Amino acid sequence: MMSPQSLTSLPTWQSLESRATTMDLPDNHLKHLLTDPDRLRHFSIDAAGLFYDFSRQRINREIFNLLMALAQQRQIKAKFKEMTRGAHLNLTEDRAVLHTATRKFAPGPVMDQGEDVMPDIVRIRDDIRKFADGVHSGQIRAEKGSMFKDIVVIGIGGSYLGTEFVSTALSGLADKGISLHFLSNVDIDNFGNIASRILPETTLWVIISKSYTTTETNANANQAYEYLKQHNLDPRKHVITVTSKGSPGDDLSNPMLATFHMFDYIGGRFSVTSAVGGVPLSLYLGYDRFERFLKGAEEMDIHAETAPESENIPLIAALISVWNNNFLNYPACGLIPYSSPLSKLAPHIQQLSMESNGKSVTTGGQPVGVDCGNIVFGEPGTNAQHSFFQLAHQGRAFPIDFIGVQKPHYTKFPATYKGVTNHQELWANLIAQPQALALGSQHQNPARSFPGNRPSSTIVISELSPENIGRLLAFYEAKTVFEAFVWDINPFDQFGVELGKVMATDIRKQMAEKNKNPGYQFDVPDPIQRYYLETLF
Amino acid sequence: MMSPQSLTSLPTWQSLESRATTMDLPDNHLKHLLTDPDRLRHFSIDAAGLFYDFSRQRINREIFNLLMALAQQRQIKAKFKEMTRGAHLNLTEDRAVLHTATRKFAPGPVMDQGEDVMPDIVRIRDDIRKFADGVHSGQIRAEKGSMFKDIVVIGIGGSYLGTEFVSTALSGLADKGISLHFLSNVDIDNFGNIASRILPETTLWVIISKSYTTTETNANANQAYEYLKQHNLDPRKHVITVTSKGSPGDDLSNPMLATFHMFDYIGGRFSVTSAVGGVPLSLYLGYDRFERFLKGAEEMDIHAETAPESENIPLIAALISVWNNNFLNYPACGLIPYSSPLSKLAPHIQQLSMESNGKSVTTGGQPVGVDCGNIVFGEPGTNAQHSFFQLAHQGRAFPIDFIGVQKPHYTKFPATYKGVTNHQELWANLIAQPQALALGSQHQNPARSFPGNRPSSTIVISELSPENIGRLLAFYEAKTVFEAFVWDINPFDQFGVELGKVMATDIRKQMAEKNKNPGYQFDVPDPIQRYYLETLF
Repeated sequence: MMSPQSLTSLPTWQSLESRATTMDLPDNHLKHLLTDPDRLRHFSIDAAGLFYDFSRQRINREIFNLLMALAQQRQIKAKFKEMTRGAHLNLTEDRAVLHTATRKFAPGPVMDQGEDVMPDIVRIRDDIRKFADGVHSGQIRAEKGSMFKDIVVIGIGGSYLGTEFVSTALSGLADKGISLHFLSNVDIDNFGNIASRILPETTLWVIISKSYTTTETNANANQAYEYLKQHNLDPRKHVITVTSKGSPGDDLSNPMLATFHMFDYIGGRFSVTSAVGGVPLSLYLGYDRFERFLKGAEEMDIHAETAPESENIPLIAALISVWNNNFLNYPACGLIPYSSPLSKLAPHIQQLSMESNGKSVTTGGQPVGVDCGNIVFGEPGTNAQHSFFQLAHQGRAFPIDFIGVQKPHYTKFPATYKGVTNHQELWANLIAQPQALALGSQHQNPARSFPGNRPSSTIVISELSPENIGRLLAFYEAKTVFEAFVWDINPFDQFGVELGKVMATDIRKQMAEKNKNPGYQFDVPDPIQRYYLETLF
Repeated sequence: MMSPQSLTSLPTWQSLESRATTMDLPDNHLKHLLTDPDRLRHFSIDAAGLFYDFSRQRINREIFNLLMALAQQRQIKAKFKEMTRGAHLNLTEDRAVLHTATRKFAPGPVMDQGEDVMPDIVRIRDDIRKFADGVHSGQIRAEKGSMFKDIVVIGIGGSYLGTEFVSTALSGLADKGISLHFLSNVDIDNFGNIASRILPETTLWVIISKSYTTTETNANANQAYEYLKQHNLDPRKHVITVTSKGSPGDDLSNPMLATFHMFDYIGGRFSVTSAVGGVPLSLYLGYDRFERFLKGAEEMDIHAETAPESENIPLIAALISVWNNNFLNYPACGLIPYSSPLSKLAPHIQQLSMESNGKSVTTGGQPVGVDCGNIVFGEPGTNAQHSFFQLAHQGRAFPIDFIGVQKPHYTKFPATYKGVTNHQELWANLIAQPQALALGSQHQNPARSFPGNRPSSTIVISELSPENIGRLLAFYEAKTVFEAFVWDINPFDQFGVELGKVMATDIRKQMAEKNKNPGYQFDVPDPIQRYYLETLF
């Protein structure tokens, strides 16, 4: 691997730093930049099914060119290509990173350690199709002969957030008579709430865990097994698993109704196009729609890999994110889709971005020297306008990704109010907000003044189709890895979650001991932890 | 009103600034502060039904005393008392701020402009009780004679976020056979999705808008009227309103099944204990549970008003928030309840905090001089651990409020895994995470090192009872206003949302014109806005 020059010592980086100070001058306020009638043409791209408008970012042509030069110097497109070809870019875990292969339909092999991964991927897609078709046709039925009506996905983090996003986005297309529930939290109230809404006889449990050692998932799987037992149902007829080959969830001596494999070259937060998303989404929406979703993602992957830097949507978005993070010093970013079905986009991208890039050391183990990653949060517009946009307009500034959908899913409610349909009203707000944030407005009453100069991008898709949701997903995935490649961090590991796990294990052992022996005195050095243990027992 | 000395020129403020720099010294790392065996005793309070542990905040006794001195100098408790007595602390709108009166059961009047507001409040509580009892008993029925089974709340921002939080938190108690739906977004897909899940004959629509001029709410109310008309149902039998006396929603010539009043002394984001929350929550949970919820909130109000500064939970939380915001420079705060039913706490507090305190000028119209408010976001734990906690541990630091519930709602699933119940596993994580964040851990591999020194508080309630949810709500409300009183900003207005509304009105007019006349050429000076308008038509 190349050992890149320290990021902050690059002349391009230093040029950007000096440009950043000039962007705070009054002349560079967005209200002035936006007077250029060609600004949208210069700072927008229509490609791979997405319209990406970055005209309200606090950049000019010179800064844009410097950002593109930085992308070239950090060879981030080359790294992306290496990634799709099976390079072990997950260095700390010595793994390939091949979520792109899971949605590859273009011919040709993808090699990992001398083996083509595509035959496995194609076979699993085929297995998913057959299984989902079997459930939908009634060929595969519950133990007592009924059709399956409820799917409970047991999985946490990357094993459900992406699926939750996609299934919510496409819920209008869910015509298979199947409801989807997510049992992610080890909180028994998550289990209890789902149990109150399903019938045991018509429920299929989908246990998703790469290692099959995730405590939360195993504890919930255990509850599901108990529940099946209490209802005299056989897990072999009501449970399927998505897991690594040979994991405890892929044990021939403990067979399931079906098992679908995932591989160590697919990280949890990048796994929604693998069997992790494929199994529940195909059951919920039908396999054909899942495949259309994959094809949209593939189109964006190809764009990310092949489009020149200055026409490359996720690459530009990544460089703007670095610019906002490290030069303009915005610590957070809002994701505001003007579409209710996209309500779970922010929680998914929150994980994707914050778990991937919430790091502080480079791939070489050196401090990065700048803050990586940022806080990603969001709610759909116009709801967000009536919630936290007060702060966006007059408090601490943060950049926003606005997301618009040209056509709504529901078209049979044509009533108008003030001369426009609800969908038009939604768009009136989506068109107004980025401009209000950018321009601001002066008022003699300081409480009614708006400083403006608050940056945003606007991303538009034509409709809530499976292809477009695949494109949107792959856009954010590519953006996330491009950012990491600029910073030279590894976006594919998550050692930051280990310490808490180790400490929880110690606490759990104390609890287990106390459960066995009520007279047990907790042996915990920290008095605060001991206090909590004692109040619980 | 007093005209306080500029905040940053106060000697106490300046002392805090100098202490803040010392807190960055290695000796003041939390791992050292936490070796004091009495730290929890010194830095925790058990009062008003809440246990509040701030032992893992980056403070020491001296800083705590300075923060308490700041609270005294800013007279924030006196201001809180003035607020509950009807002072017009919403200066820009010249209004009293009396959400505390809506949960007052203690005897005595509350005067606003020479009139006692309590008789109206008591009467409305009584009206809500009668109406909810009537619906539950079947005395009040839908037009065709069926019981009401679905309630659709039409309202946005403060007209639904608090109700969504409380109803989700107490959903385990919802035994009235009624489902609650929130139609907040003007997005027609929000309406369409709800319409696909209800039966028109058994649905009651609750339209909530103080002014009855909120565009989103009126557009959705309009859709509901059309929907009723299509199904040959009379709005007078299927619609109720919560609105100001004499608003367009309280029009005797257009009578509803019922109308409940709200008052200008109750702001949207503080309104969940008024009829705004009272009507839907009483229908969903029964009026008695709503009243228990009010009584919990009242208990916290009394605590906030009467407890000495150094024993006052919301006051201390507010001062710590200011400390983290302005002295330790954390721009965001995470809210992580280890309880699935509290999943809507963060979206509600996000609005409450960011809309109240996302300001930049004082009540006197001067710049505050420091950043006010911060970004509030969160998801339930342990889910959050598998989502964005990587960044919390190894990326940009942000303080966290951990929230624990001693007893889960569901107690009939006793299966254990690794020797502990699911609820114990949840608590093992809740006990481990704050400590892992605080202590950190060194490793020879920098990618596996944890800097630690990341602050958090832990708030514990005994169970998901109506009283406790009331206490938790009132805690965050009081914390929010105490913060504002330190900064001397007005937390009760929201002029920051006006500019976007004005701009949306201009865009809407263009759209309405185009709807009337397809040949109309858009008359919008901004080329970017024109582009979006043209692509939509």
